[in-house]
Order: sequence, then structure tokens, then C-alpha cells
Amino acid sequence: MSGNTFGTLFAVTNFGESHGPAIGCVIDGCPPGLALSEADIQPDLDRRRPGTSRHVTQRQEADRVEILSGVYEGHTTGTPICLLIRNTDQRSKDYSDIASTFRPGHADYAYMQKYGRRDPRGGGRSSARMTAPMVAAGAVAKKWLAARHGTRFQGCMQQLGDMEIPFEGWEHVPNNPFFAPVADVSALEAYMDALRKSGDSCGARIRVSASRVPPGLGEPLYDKLDADIAWAMMGINAVKGVEIGAGFASVTQRGSTHGDSLTPEGFASNNAGGVLGGISTGQDLEVSIAIKPTSSIITPRDTIDVQGRPTQVVTKGRHDPCVGIRATPIAEAMLALVVMEHALRQRAQNGDVSPPMAGIEASFL
Amino acid sequence: MSGNTFGTLFAVTNFGESHGPAIGCVIDGCPPGLALSEADIQPDLDRRRPGTSRHVTQRQEADRVEILSGVYEGHTTGTPICLLIRNTDQRSKDYSDIASTFRPGHADYAYMQKYGRRDPRGGGRSSARMTAPMVAAGAVAKKWLAARHGTRFQGCMQQLGDMEIPFEGWEHVPNNPFFAPVADVSALEAYMDALRKSGDSCGARIRVSASRVPPGLGEPLYDKLDADIAWAMMGINAVKGVEIGAGFASVTQRGSTHGDSLTPEGFASNNAGGVLGGISTGQDLEVSIAIKPTSSIITPRDTIDVQGRPTQVVTKGRHDPCVGIRATPIAEAMLALVVMEHALRQRAQNGDVSPPMAGIEASFL
Amino acid sequence: MSGNTFGTLFAVTNFGESHGPAIGCVIDGCPPGLALSEADIQPDLDRRRPGTSRHVTQRQEADRVEILSGVYEGHTTGTPICLLIRNTDQRSKDYSDIASTFRPGHADYAYMQKYGRRDPRGGGRSSARMTAPMVAAGAVAKKWLAARHGTRFQGCMQQLGDMEIPFEGWEHVPNNPFFAPVADVSALEAYMDALRKSGDSCGARIRVSASRVPPGLGEPLYDKLDADIAWAMMGINAVKGVEIGAGFASVTQRGSTHGDSLTPEGFASNNAGGVLGGISTGQDLEVSIAIKPTSSIITPRDTIDVQGRPTQVVTKGRHDPCVGIRATPIAEAMLALVVMEHALRQRAQNGDVSPPMAGIEASFL
Amino acid sequence: MSGNTFGTLFAVTNFGESHGPAIGCVIDGCPPGLALSEADIQPDLDRRRPGTSRHVTQRQEADRVEILSGVYEGHTTGTPICLLIRNTDQRSKDYSDIASTFRPGHADYAYMQKYGRRDPRGGGRSSARMTAPMVAAGAVAKKWLAARHGTRFQGCMQQLGDMEIPFEGWEHVPNNPFFAPVADVSALEAYMDALRKSGDSCGARIRVSASRVPPGLGEPLYDKLDADIAWAMMGINAVKGVEIGAGFASVTQRGSTHGDSLTPEGFASNNAGGVLGGISTGQDLEVSIAIKPTSSIITPRDTIDVQGRPTQVVTKGRHDPCVGIRATPIAEAMLALVVMEHALRQRAQNGDVSPPMAGIEASFL
Repeated sequence: MSGNTFGTLFAVTNFGESHGPAIGCVIDGCPPGLALSEADIQPDLDRRRPGTSRHVTQRQEADRVEILSGVYEGHTTGTPICLLIRNTDQRSKDYSDIASTFRPGHADYAYMQKYGRRDPRGGGRSSARMTAPMVAAGAVAKKWLAARHGTRFQGCMQQLGDMEIPFEGWEHVPNNPFFAPVADVSALEAYMDALRKSGDSCGARIRVSASRVPPGLGEPLYDKLDADIAWAMMGINAVKGVEIGAGFASVTQRGSTHGDSLTPEGFASNNAGGVLGGISTGQDLEVSIAIKPTSSIITPRDTIDVQGRPTQVVTKGRHDPCVGIRATPIAEAMLALVVMEHALRQRAQNGDVSPPMAGIEASFL
Repeated sequence: MSGNTFGTLFAVTNFGESHGPAIGCVIDGCPPGLALSEADIQPDLDRRRPGTSRHVTQRQEADRVEILSGVYEGHTTGTPICLLIRNTDQRSKDYSDIASTFRPGHADYAYMQKYGRRDPRGGGRSSARMTAPMVAAGAVAKKWLAARHGTRFQGCMQQLGDMEIPFEGWEHVPNNPFFAPVADVSALEAYMDALRKSGDSCGARIRVSASRVPPGLGEPLYDKLDADIAWAMMGINAVKGVEIGAGFASVTQRGSTHGDSLTPEGFASNNAGGVLGGISTGQDLEVSIAIKPTSSIITPRDTIDVQGRPTQVVTKGRHDPCVGIRATPIAEAMLALVVMEHALRQRAQNGDVSPPMAGIEASFL
Repeated sequence: MSGNTFGTLFAVTNFGESHGPAIGCVIDGCPPGLALSEADIQPDLDRRRPGTSRHVTQRQEADRVEILSGVYEGHTTGTPICLLIRNTDQRSKDYSDIASTFRPGHADYAYMQKYGRRDPRGGGRSSARMTAPMVAAGAVAKKWLAARHGTRFQGCMQQLGDMEIPFEGWEHVPNNPFFAPVADVSALEAYMDALRKSGDSCGARIRVSASRVPPGLGEPLYDKLDADIAWAMMGINAVKGVEIGAGFASVTQRGSTHGDSLTPEGFASNNAGGVLGGISTGQDLEVSIAIKPTSSIITPRDTIDVQGRPTQVVTKGRHDPCVGIRATPIAEAMLALVVMEHALRQRAQNGDVSPPMAGIEASFL
Repeated sequence: MSGNTFGTLFAVTNFGESHGPAIGCVIDGCPPGLALSEADIQPDLDRRRPGTSRHVTQRQEADRVEILSGVYEGHTTGTPICLLIRNTDQRSKDYSDIASTFRPGHADYAYMQKYGRRDPRGGGRSSARMTAPMVAAGAVAKKWLAARHGTRFQGCMQQLGDMEIPFEGWEHVPNNPFFAPVADVSALEAYMDALRKSGDSCGARIRVSASRVPPGLGEPLYDKLDADIAWAMMGINAVKGVEIGAGFASVTQRGSTHGDSLTPEGFASNNAGGVLGGISTGQDLEVSIAIKPTSSIITPRDTIDVQGRPTQVVTKGRHDPCVGIRATPIAEAMLALVVMEHALRQRAQNGDVSPPMAGIEASFL
């Protein structure tokens, strides 16, 4: 209700600040009996963590996760799973300059308007560091969904600032720091090197998809699967746009083109992005998001201070020149959390087994 | 939880089917003391209702709203407001052909996968007719927000299929059936006439905005104001994409351009679309949505029947060739409902008066 | 959130006032495929409705229920079920005297403090008439639970004012207007005749129980099954106390007596009332509630008016001299709604089939 | 939803097990600007913690609370407050005997039915140790309510097993380990010494009350203030009954006696226990709860093992012979959390200032 819990049946309550002693989350509603240890969670955290290339923030955080509850003898018990990540590389003095001014494009001003106070160290609660516990929770959801339904999540970068990135194959994604689906990322590296030198930042476009999603997930009117995906994605720091399937391209499509034909072998195309009427069809979920350029830059910007007087601000400290670079594992995790929530909801209303549809289930899924 | 309630503090529970006896909603959480009658609600319903031009479905529905509860002596009492709209022009026989086949791009297939059964008459629960009660509820929210904060909502069409529509001014919007912000809509009329004749359908892009939105609305991590807007918009029938502020254009912007400078007189631009860190800044909310082409068309399409056998489907009956034409008042209503919800949340956590910020509030708002 | 929705997965949103045009509810989350018609609901409404004996209010309401949505071809579709009950015997003039004074023991004063206004006709929203839609919703829950789990609900009166009522057998309950489990109710009738003549009112104690409740229902910490039962029961108009199993008698029991021994044939006793650690064990749920005497009596009472001046109030109009008499079907319905909610929650987290426990399930259930 | 979050606007998510590394909670929704440190919380934890007299469990836990987030420069920021309490005195070997048998009256059996597995060490998640984080959260609620409304919470023991405890005065409560409102507790001590020697356990009755509760708290139909109190109290480990105001005594009262007269100086009595129609009146909240005897006793009991075979169980380890002894601070905390939640809800719907009632507010409150 106050915006720090994600989901209802698979509810993840997030806590912490960028420069506090620790960040973490509590997962409530994980089904019992899932084999789980820190080793299931750490790899996704490692994909997201800072300091792993020269193109991202140089803050050094091991992001070691500790399971504090909810697991007994290596299996989930059905009770809350608390995941704790200690902050280890805070340099709070870096942020003293910005405590009394507002960075253009940053949450500083809005937090001050909302709460009348804020923790300015590293953006406090508004820091993208808060996505780490979500990546951890997403890893738990991924494991359950893979075990039960064979669902698999993957994502990649589609565009870096002005540079469109062609899709050469998923196999390239783990081999470069951009999560780019291309073999050769030298152009991307050069682009980022120039950007960093200029003291500016850029945006990015990220694709995330899921395969083997059970059909029937999503509620018809307001908790539509695509609506919840849009909510989850727009809730990631710096996201300004979300598309499902054909997205904005559907505006210029004709109905005779957009609607995906059905055949006994399955759908003939996927303009829907895996969702019809807010409910999953069993096709791959396809999502694309726009990420704005980082607001913390060393280029001087016009702004005001907390007394409303005009001033300029320059953001020193350690920042990602393109927050989109580390966004892929975050977007995957958020998609996994949405699917997990709806998989449990579907089970509540319709039971373990979807209502049988003669002749269809076998050929489609 | 099962997807038919929108909001928590201003909770709107929607019920009904396209061809059942009635549709409606129950609003729970409207503050007491608001002067309210059917006359406050009917105008927005009239803007949305079918049969008002040759470019939309010819189903004739008066969409008369009846207040069944929650209002006493002309004022809200703080208890649930039930709004009822009787269906009067159902022609269920029109839909007998499609009861056993699935329209490409339509919710038919997904509903069948989810529930094992469905009401096929007019799309049943998946019909865009379900947006009528939301428009009614939105009118209540609009009235309260206008009275308390001076907030105002407006929307218009930005694109119709391939035709971009220039913005000439809000004053044109009420004067044409497209909600187009242009003086002359003859080109749009010709476009639609040709489309209808072709038996096909097209998409649209809609803009909706809100002015005088109180700052401080939105929760920091997951119930961000922009995330909830994305959720509400993607939940409207046929929406495939949502942008806040600069949206997908922010991918190619530099940080030095995107971040809106602050001055003692206010923000110098509005790439943010009125939201920073998920919290309203007091600037106008700016939202853009993509609406896909209608799936119910008379052009024959390949599909399967409920036994999974290949067949073709032609959708007769009365349908909108572009559902985007009537989407503007719907999008306005959904935006109003999101703002209303967060206005009450803000009051719960922070009280009636936002925390004072010396020197800023006066100049900004 | 504003208190008019009961449940989350089987969510019942209630609307209406005693003397408005209609009362009703929307059930969201009913599983699809349940055979349902008005005939399944009306019998429980008839058990609760007023005017059926001289011992209850003489208001004549047929309480005819109409299903407005969510049922197609005789089966639930999984979408919201709106149940409407028209008010037909309002006599609003009866209540003009009490619009400006507060009845001792009545919600009048509290509503005025909360909302600054109230609908005084028949108690408006605070009327026990609001329980009718809950009885209707409870009938839907009962039908599903009976079909799926064989669960059965029954209740009876245990005490009427000073008169303890011995338990002679469930078979007597339908044969008298008190829901008393005794063959001869002449003493109860004489007691009520004398009470009515005295112009006063009395309380009652009601027992409600459920058999064949699936084990494993209830959440461990806060949504314990017994906690939710206490919430549901204390939420019934006029209830001032709730007991589960041995209830207050457990204060003087020793642990060696209270704890119900387990044997291969089942539990040896039921001090627990069917719940251990907040979770159902498969034993019968046993609940007892205390209902206070009606506050609307013709005996003059000291009070104040809306200006705070001392005055007296006499409540004319038609009232139950003991609201407990009609409370049994209400308490049954509320218990059914709690069990229904938790049956769906259990399915969400643990699937259709509870985790197997070798050798136990067969013998216990 | 899965039962580990208490409240919605002031939401407390609890995690941990009796013998895991730590227990704790996350408070989401605490208003910003409240001065807060560990020193505000520790005193209530110290009142609840074990090992402080010979009449309670001898487990030694300092129950030191650590604030991990949500507080900056000594004040709450409006973001989640994580409170962590490390477990320090686990002796897991004590519990090895009971891992495969079910203690009569204990949650063991129900957990096994629900989840198919359980953490048997110290009762795992079902341990009363889980109330420690709630006492910590309650201390935060108490501080805010005291600062804003002057609300004060207090509780005491009314009965210990067979021994009724007269009310001599609140001032005695802090001076004895029983929270008994009497000067001389030697009889209680003798009672407990004999009980412990017998190897058995006993129940208790606890009173908890709140003064200076704002009027208007509570929602009319289902989230009634008294219903939520009943839910919170019945959710405390071992509670089997809850009364508000006159409670079960109201069954034998006449309406002319039960209804509390209103006078210009206030209510003349408090049979209502501070709640009418589910809404606070401004009178003291008065609650009484029944606590059953501890199920973990050294007296041998008949039971079954996890294979369903008959056996006997004796519970060694360290246990409270009367869990009611330490229940008073827990019940106070739960009452404070309910009032806090409703204070925020009231503010959401009705604003900071309750609707004015001419001439009444001044004299009543």
C-alpha cells in the first residue's frame, strides 16, 4: 500500500537504502518444498551487481545474499523468506553536495515534496540499488516456475542511446557487459567510452521475454497480465515506456495483419506478445522497455536549492552513465515475479490443472 | 485480486457482461460530503457511448446511470456508491457464429484457456463495454479532485492508423467524434470511411494529461505513480504500449537534455511527464498510449475451432472499426482514478497538507 | 480497505442502505463452472428475512435475489457475480424523530463522528439489513464447498437473554423461529412475548459449526483461520464476543486437559474448535458468539442531540427485540465465507492436493 | 495474503523462526518525521522477553533490536523500517524428540497438514517468539499515536488459571512479573510454583485498553474497529476468546441497561467498550482475551507420530508454563497496531480533521 510490497500471493516486501547498513526483502507466499539455497540466487545478483566493467558505476559491492528465514534443511517451508544483502562500499561523503539541491531528472525533488525530508546519500531509497533484492526474489520465482512449468526468462539490450543493436542470438548475451545479443560489442564499447568522456549519459531499450508461460494467467479487467507487466516494468528506475508484443507499431497495423492467426500447430505470429484480453495464451511473452538517461551527470545543470533559489548542480560520485546497461537482469526478474504471482492466482481460482480444452492443449503447449 | 477491483482506497469494483441485464460498479472509499448526482456522471458516459457517429459501432445504448447507494440528500455519505447501467440493445444472435471459433487477436481463446467456458455474446466480460462503469467512476473521481485540488483531465487522439494528427488546440476536441485536436477532421472521416468499406480495422494513439496534480503522489518503489498509470492504461482493452513524458524518445536523449531543469518559476521542460522517482512533481502528467486495431472484422481470418480444427472466421455484428476513437474519455477516466487513489494514499501517510518546503510551494504550485 | 469488501480471493463487496432502492453485493473470485441459480441462494435468504414470526421485526421484505452477472447458461463463468435485492418495504417517516438524536448503544453517534453526516433512515448503512447480501454470498460459498469438499455449515441458538437452551439436536433447528436445538420452544416464546410487552430488548448466544473442513486452511501468523473467523463474527452487527472451541473456559483448563489427544482414529476431543496454530486440523470448526441486546427500544433513554444538548430518545418503528434470533443464518454465512476464502488461499500456495502425509490422511478425513 | 503481513496502511511484515538466525519485521507506511531510535522500542521488548522470572521460560534472549532502514538522522523518512532481532540462545537439540510426533494442542500437526513439512526447532514459525517483532512494531505505533493523538495503551492480567485477580490499580502492573494489577502477588507466585512442580500448564485472561482514541476509527461493514481488534487478538498465539466491552455478559443484559447513555459530559458507562457500529466513539477501548494453557508440557500425552501410529509425547525443553504471563505487552502492541492502521485509514478518507460536530467534540474529547 505504501509501495514497498510487490505482489499479493507471492509478495515481496523490499527494504533498505543505498547507504544504509543493509538492503533486502521478505518473500511471503513461496510454496513449500522448493529446494533453495543462496547458490540459487547469487548468479542473478552477480549479473546485476555494480563494478563489473568500466561502463558501469565503480562502486564495489559483492552483493552477497543471506537467507535469514523460511528455509529448513534446504527446502522452503512455506513461511517468509528474508533475504539480506549488506551494503559494504558506501561513501556517503560523495553526496554531501547534493543534499540541498535537486538534480534535474532525479527523484530528489519529488521525495522532498512527498516526505518533507530525504536521505540524500546515494539517492537513499530512490537508488537503483533497491533493485538488487528484487533480482534476488526474482531468482526464487524463476526457480519455482522452471521446476513446475518449464518457464524460462531471458532479456537483452535492443538499443544503446542512438545505436540500434541487431539481434544475432541469445547465446551472445552472457558474453558481454551490455547484455547485447551480438558477437562483437566493440562499437558499443567505443560509444560508451566517448559518452563517459563527454560527462553525459544516455538511454537504452531493453527486451525481455518468457517462454513456456502457462496459458490462462492474468485477470480479465484490471489485473491483466499485460497491465501487471506494464506496472512492474514502469516501476523499474528510469523506465519511461513499455510495449507488449507489437507495441506502438500496432497503431499503424491493420486488424487483418495484427491479429495472430491460429492454426492446429499454434499461433502463426506473435503481435500479441503472448497476451490476449489480458490473459496469457501460452505464446512467448514479449516486452520492450525504454530507459531514460541517468540524471546524475557531471555536466553542470540549472536547478534550485531547497530554499527555491536558482543554482547549478554537478553530480560527482560514482554513477552509471547508462543505467540501461544493468537493466536486463532486473527486467527479467520483474517479469518472473509477475508471472509467479499470476501462476499462484490461477491456481487459486482454477486449481492446479487448467480447464481441459479438447484437442488444443496437446498441440499448443 | 481476481481482477475486477481497481484501486484500494478509492476502490471501484466492476461487474457485468456485454449482453447481460446490466453492467455497473461499486465505488468504495469516496470521501463523504461530495455533492453528487447522476448529472455529474452522465456527460462523461455520453462522450464514451456507442452509436453517436458512423465511425463507431451502431449499437444503441443510452448508458443511463442510476445511483443505487451511497448518496443521501445529494451528498456522498462515505459508504459504497453503486452505479448501475442497464443494457438495452443486446442482439445476442449476432454472436452465435463465433461461440465455437476463436477470433485472431481476440480474448476468446485466452478466456477459454483460463476458465474452460465463456459467455460469447458480444465478447461477454472481455467487451470494451466494461469500460462504461469505469468512465462513470472516473467522473466521481474527477469531481472530487477538481473540487479539492483543481485537478483537470483532458485527452485527445494523436494518430489514427497511419495518419498523424497535429495538435492545434484542446478546444477542437469536443467538436468532432474523434476527439481530435484539429479544426478540420474531413481527412479523418475519409480515412475511416475507406477503412470501413475495406472490411478492416486500424489502431490509434491517444494522449491524456492532467494539470494541477498535487506533488508528492505516488509510492517510491512499486506503486509508483507512473507504474500505476502504466497499469491502468495497459489494462484498457486493446492497449499495447504506454509512454510517460518523453517515453521511448528518451532512449536517444542525452541526460543533459532529458532532465528537466528547475527554476524558481518552475520546471523548464517536461520530459518527465510530471513524475520523478515515481512521485508527482506538480507538473502536468503526460501519457501516451498505443491502441491496436479491432480484432472483430469482416475480413475472413484463419483460425481454429474449440476442437482445435482449422477453420475460418468472419465477425459480423456491430463493431468499432477503430476502438481508439472512443478511447479518449476512457483513458481520462483511468488517469483520474489513479490520481484519486494516490491523493487518498498521500493523505493517509502524510496528512492533508504536504510537508512544507520553504519558498518552493508558493512559486511552483 | 474502506470496509465494504469481505475476503480477497473470494471477495464480496457489499453495497446499499436500509431504506435505499436496493442492497446487494458483487462476488469476485468464484471459481468457474459451478452450477448456480437464484434457487440456490433464496432459501438462506428466506431463513434470515424479517417478518416471519411475531418475535422479529414486522418489516415485510421478500428479499428476492436477482443475479445480474457472472452466470452463463446456468454456470458461473469465473467473472464477478452481482446479486441484487430490491428494498420494497421502506417506511422512512418512521425514522424522522431520530435523525437529530443519538440512540444509546447505536451506531448513530459513531457514524456522525466519522463522516459528519449519515443516512438516518432505518440506520442507513449500519442496519443489520446489510447482512442479507452476505447471506446470499454465503450461499454461493456453501454450494462450492459442499460440492468440492463436502463441507457443511450449521448453527443454532444457545442462549436467549437469561435462558440457556439445552442442545437436544440439530433436527429441531429448522422447526422454530429461534433456530433453537430443542423440540419445545414454548418457554422461549413466552420469554419473548414478555420482553416485547416490557418495551425492552435482550441478547443471545449463537453457536455455529462446520464439518468436513479441509485441513491446512489458515495462514500462520495473522490471517489465522480462527483470527479471520473472529474478525468475521465480530463484524456481524451487535456481536460483542467470540469464542473458538473451549473459548473462555480454556482459561481454567490445565494443559493436560485442554490439548486434544490424537489417536489413529482421530482427535479424542475438540477443545481446539478445529484450529491449531491458526490452521484447520480437519476437525469440526466450533464457534460461539455473544450478541448484545438491540439498541432500538421504546423504553425512553437519556441521550444528547446533534448539538450536544441533553434529551431523551424513544425508538419507534419496526425493530427486532432480539437481533440474535435472526443471527444464526448470518453467522453460518460468515463462517462459510471465511472457509471459502481460505480454501482458495490454500490452493494458491499448496495446490489442489494438500501435501500427502503417509497413513494419516486416510484415517483422519 | 500468506498471513505474515499485519495491516495495510501501517503494514508490518514479520519473518523468522524460533531457532533461525534472526527474527524481525518490516514496517511499511510509517509517516515521515517521527523521531525514532532503538531506545524507543527496546523497553517494550524488555517487558516481553523471556528469562526474566522463574515463572516463564528460561531461554535467555536479549532481544536487542536493530533498525536497518527507514530512519535517517534520527527521524523516520516514510520508507520501510526494517527491525532485526538476532536469536542468540537456540538449543535446537532440545527439540529433536518432537520432530516426528505431534504435541496435543500444538500447531505441529496443522503445519504438517498444510505444508507437508515443518521446522520443528522450538515450534519454528508457530513459536510465540514471533510476537517479539510485533511488540517492536507496536512500540513505533504507540509513539506516533501518543505524539499525535495522546493515545495510551495499557494492559493487565485479570485471571491466572482458576485465580481471579482483582483490579487494585494500574500502578501495580509494572511491579510484578505477571502484569497483575495488585500489590501482593505472593498467591500468584505460589500458584505458579505448584503448577510448575506438577508438570502441567494453565490459561489466563488478559485485559487491554486504550485511552484517548480518536473517534471515527473503523470501517462500517467488515473492517470494523472491533472486528479488527478481534482478528488481531485471536491471532496471538494461544488465544481462544475475545470480548469487547461487556462481551459475553451482554447476552444477559437488557437493552435499557446495555446501551451507554450519552450526556453532555460524555457517555455514562462503557458497555460498548469504546466501539459502536464498528467505529470508535472516543471512549476507552476495552478488550478481554482468553489464553489457553501451554501445549508443551512434561506430562505425558497420547498422540500419533508422522506415520499415524499411536505413541506418547513428553515435551522437554524450555517452555512457559503459562504463556498468558508474557501476553500483556503483546496484546497492547496488537491493539496499538490496529488503532494505528485505522488512524491512517480515517485520515485517507476523511482528512486530518474529523468532520466537525457542533458542540460535541469539545465536551467529549
